[in-house]
Amino acid sequence: MMVNDRPHVVIVGAGFGGLYAARALKYEDVRVTVVDRRNHHLFQPLLYQVATAGLSSSDIAYPIRAVLSRQQNARVCMAEVVAIDVAAHKVILQDGKIEYDYLLLAPGGRHSYFGHPEWEAYAPGLKSVEDALEIRSRILMAFERAESEVDETRRQALLTFVIVGGGPTGVELAGAIAEIACMALVHDFRRINPQDARIILVEAGPRILPAFPEVLSNKAEAVLRELHVEVRTNSVVTMIRSGDVMIGDQSILAETVLWAAGITVSPLAQTLGVPLDREGRVLVESDLSIPGHPEILVVGDLAAFVDHDGVLLPGLAPVAIQQGRHAAQNIARRCKGQLPEPFHYVDRGILAAIGRGAAVARIGPIKISGFLAWVAWVFIHIFFLIGFRNRFIVLFEWAWAYITLQRSARLITGETGKNASDSFSR
Amino acid sequence: MMVNDRPHVVIVGAGFGGLYAARALKYEDVRVTVVDRRNHHLFQPLLYQVATAGLSSSDIAYPIRAVLSRQQNARVCMAEVVAIDVAAHKVILQDGKIEYDYLLLAPGGRHSYFGHPEWEAYAPGLKSVEDALEIRSRILMAFERAESEVDETRRQALLTFVIVGGGPTGVELAGAIAEIACMALVHDFRRINPQDARIILVEAGPRILPAFPEVLSNKAEAVLRELHVEVRTNSVVTMIRSGDVMIGDQSILAETVLWAAGITVSPLAQTLGVPLDREGRVLVESDLSIPGHPEILVVGDLAAFVDHDGVLLPGLAPVAIQQGRHAAQNIARRCKGQLPEPFHYVDRGILAAIGRGAAVARIGPIKISGFLAWVAWVFIHIFFLIGFRNRFIVLFEWAWAYITLQRSARLITGETGKNASDSFSR
Repeated sequence: MMVNDRPHVVIVGAGFGGLYAARALKYEDVRVTVVDRRNHHLFQPLLYQVATAGLSSSDIAYPIRAVLSRQQNARVCMAEVVAIDVAAHKVILQDGKIEYDYLLLAPGGRHSYFGHPEWEAYAPGLKSVEDALEIRSRILMAFERAESEVDETRRQALLTFVIVGGGPTGVELAGAIAEIACMALVHDFRRINPQDARIILVEAGPRILPAFPEVLSNKAEAVLRELHVEVRTNSVVTMIRSGDVMIGDQSILAETVLWAAGITVSPLAQTLGVPLDREGRVLVESDLSIPGHPEILVVGDLAAFVDHDGVLLPGLAPVAIQQGRHAAQNIARRCKGQLPEPFHYVDRGILAAIGRGAAVARIGPIKISGFLAWVAWVFIHIFFLIGFRNRFIVLFEWAWAYITLQRSARLITGETGKNASDSFSR
Repeated sequence: MMVNDRPHVVIVGAGFGGLYAARALKYEDVRVTVVDRRNHHLFQPLLYQVATAGLSSSDIAYPIRAVLSRQQNARVCMAEVVAIDVAAHKVILQDGKIEYDYLLLAPGGRHSYFGHPEWEAYAPGLKSVEDALEIRSRILMAFERAESEVDETRRQALLTFVIVGGGPTGVELAGAIAEIACMALVHDFRRINPQDARIILVEAGPRILPAFPEVLSNKAEAVLRELHVEVRTNSVVTMIRSGDVMIGDQSILAETVLWAAGITVSPLAQTLGVPLDREGRVLVESDLSIPGHPEILVVGDLAAFVDHDGVLLPGLAPVAIQQGRHAAQNIARRCKGQLPEPFHYVDRGILAAIGRGAAVARIGPIKISGFLAWVAWVFIHIFFLIGFRNRFIVLFEWAWAYITLQRSARLITGETGKNASDSFSR
């Protein structure tokens, strides 16, 4: 069915950038191969809800093959990409190679521990389904262990949650943990009062949600304080070890530390032989290609793109989606002998949920907060989810949680669960 | 709130037996402690649907604390029980002890590999959420690996699925895998045809579903054959190793082998100092207590109970539920100075789903099969699920799957997912 003389477009990564690029090529006369090491596209903006037991992972994940099953010019390859051979036009897999005519790189990023990789074991970050389930188990396990802990100091450490990073993910995690403690678990324990949980949100900068207008940062901070979250701005985490975290020079005994700070990008960039910025991102041209190689385009977290107003675009889903589509169109243009066009980001706004019925949003130039912003947040997220089934279930889960105050996926599974009794015997 | 002179009933295990026992004690003047090493009750009859990507684990699991949150005389302890000190009336935990006045043992079972524990690595069984997610990843990964396999023999081995054990779980797994191959995945691959999958159900006895009337066994076998499942009765698995399984003296190259045969019970029984049957089950008295210790009662998989008609009760949910309730009532009777009553199982029937719109059921004396049996199966399972939310979601998922032929939880996660590329490089 596939004619081999059609240009072969290889897309690395099936996140927002890669998947929207693949779909944008549906009616073009090209062959598309999407390579990802996972079999599913993950709706990352809602991953914090899986980590806080509000949603199941399958509600926000969708098989890449199912997304592209009816797109006859596309095929999917589940494999790990280890390098790009720019000279030979080849993507090097762990056990094979794929030749390309055009390459679209959208591999996304992971968390950066700012030169302290040893912190990762004590302060997991949130990028994959496994991360989310691990964090979910840790949060729920902390309450379980506190219930059977007789020592008061250790019980308080078990009920102390430190979230590092005051961006949207950190704010959403802090708000959701506060809700778990004050609502979902409130009748479930006999010895501890889950409301005694201490939740600390640490932000190095002067305010949380730095990408938002200042008035919304202040609003978000006020809502978090109402939920009894301690918001610490201008505070830097200087050390993390088992059961203990240093904020500046103050030690806080906390069994659960979550990492929602900086991201680092795929090491693939280093194999391209082009200049990278300090964070390892590729300094792309205005058409999203890399210097000297118009056939290679980079989008999403891996691309350092400075927009016409001189601002570096943030690592957000809308940026990746628009870049993915634009890069696909530029490839299509080149295939037809046309010139590529420069990319411009259309900033429609930014949102973050804080808790039940509370969010902050800038939609275009309009700043809103509270219930209205939360409704906007709900429907925008539902709209961008893939598939009717996921939309329906997530909407039902949110309505159900809103009414009952319960969280539907309170499962402790995996190693944390299996070793329940080991943790008890610490 | 709890008065310490009320009798203390300790329940080990929050499966069907333990949880229904705890709830039956709600209005009794006792203190109840439920001990389980997991934080959730698992609706085991639907676990095969999690393993075959039809449901999410949170749809069939419910936090034990949430079930008992409003039951003021009950508390929950998440801990691993390692032994029973019968003389001292104590449950020995991995790091502690709980004294009891009455003990209700309902720890359930695991799979038995008939003296071949080394088979477990190649042929996982289905008892926990982790088991189900591991099996799900293996099934989906087999198709992924087949898609990128160039060697014809190895590709066929990757598309060969052997299910050992022709009871309800084996039949349901075989039917669901056939549906995945013939329906859910049918448009998703470009090189392989998922319908080429070979699914073999192996049963040592003369017919599948041996606990069902023979006419229903035959019906189930016919439906499986229509789904292109090879049913091999009177066949014994004699060896399992990586990529290879021996049925009798015939070797079959199969990358995915699933274990749905015999179960073995908790080693806790051995610490009771009472006679056990060949499978390690406790030979309980007619009132479900153990010989010489009227304060210890055993229910569910761990109890070897011979009913008045001389038949050993099978390890099914309805048996555990009825025994759990009856044991709780006997404890309540003893607390009031009354005599315990003998247990009698009320056999309302038995059901097994085979595939989309197909099931077999004996309801009382009535034998039905086909669509009507499937509708009965659906509503009986929905009825016994805990919580409105789970019932609603599961019913929606089934309706959705019935209409679209899709399976909603096609996620490859965990180690199998992480090592995707390792498997490729075998």
